[in-house]
Amino acid sequence: MHFTQDRIDALDTRTRAHFINSLSGFKSANLIGTQDDQRQTNLSIVSSVFHLGANPPLVGMIIRPHSVARHTFENILQTGFYTINQVNQFIFSQAHQTSARYDRDESEFDVTGLTVEYLMDFHAPFVKQSRLKYSVKLVEQQHLAVNGTELVIGEIVDVYVDEGAVKADGFIDLHAIDTVAISGLDSYHTTNKLARLPYAKK
Amino acid sequence: MHFTQDRIDALDTRTRAHFINSLSGFKSANLIGTQDDQRQTNLSIVSSVFHLGANPPLVGMIIRPHSVARHTFENILQTGFYTINQVNQFIFSQAHQTSARYDRDESEFDVTGLTVEYLMDFHAPFVKQSRLKYSVKLVEQQHLAVNGTELVIGEIVDVYVDEGAVKADGFIDLHAIDTVAISGLDSYHTTNKLARLPYAKK
Repeated sequence: MHFTQDRIDALDTRTRAHFINSLSGFKSANLIGTQDDQRQTNLSIVSSVFHLGANPPLVGMIIRPHSVARHTFENILQTGFYTINQVNQFIFSQAHQTSARYDRDESEFDVTGLTVEYLMDFHAPFVKQSRLKYSVKLVEQQHLAVNGTELVIGEIVDVYVDEGAVKADGFIDLHAIDTVAISGLDSYHTTNKLARLPYAKK
Repeated sequence: MHFTQDRIDALDTRTRAHFINSLSGFKSANLIGTQDDQRQTNLSIVSSVFHLGANPPLVGMIIRPHSVARHTFENILQTGFYTINQVNQFIFSQAHQTSARYDRDESEFDVTGLTVEYLMDFHAPFVKQSRLKYSVKLVEQQHLAVNGTELVIGEIVDVYVDEGAVKADGFIDLHAIDTVAISGLDSYHTTNKLARLPYAKK
């Protein structure tokens, strides 16, 4: 099937959103934990977290500043701190529910039943049920004029991960800790291992 | 298990790369097809392709300009065109092999056996074996000073996808077309469907 640019442009907004969101492939599923200066907590599912570099350890994400993630974005700018919590198959429905449009004074922790956890005096809250999570310090925020989104870049500070998931070579077995992947806007997936492949040589 | 920043900093480079690359969650698996002005083709696996927006339809990726993806990056800047081809479970080993350090005059199509396909007179080559692929026009390139990577943003032009994979609401069933996900630097995964969840409401 061939979809020309004209045919894609002619799709209604929601259909186009489903279609275009499927094109990049499987996406990461993460909950972003923040709180404001008044200690009002916020939790937001984000499918745009991506690896940026290992040295220094950096992680990026794209946020739409007027979307349901607006409080997350404001809290990050206000405090400079956030947590990233991988979503696993036992909490994916609750994680998805954080994408509803709650008011600023409602905490997605309370409404979804996910449990607030504070670790090592870090300012932002973690999700207790997440089995791989880390604290992040804001490094840089860039407005992308091309479509009004924001690129948020953070430095990875402390990492908390299930015992046994970290292999001798540093690889973390995301399959073993039931981390899920997202496709499109709303489809959640567990995984099966195909293989780990050796470093490719000519 | 708790990994402090000091403990992470103390990991050797390769171990830290495996570890940090696992933190963002599952990643997309895509082959980037390009050619230079002399029609020398190039193909490179990239795990950093991400959805940027549906209206206009935009896709982003992060490229390390001195990595094995250097020819891909140079060809995109030189010509302004590239293709993105989702990797499926029948070609993931060949796709991974494109990450070896080939010379500029060697085509990863030839060495891996993946088949060049030209569609609609688009300048850049597609991968015939890919079941979801699209042509992309470079919109913007940004140097990220924080770690010397490049953010490449492109506009989606024509989309080619297996008959039957596109649902009535625009969602594309990536599981049905055997698209794989990556974790860490080298682990490939097929998926199982958990559920598609309804648009979340308060």
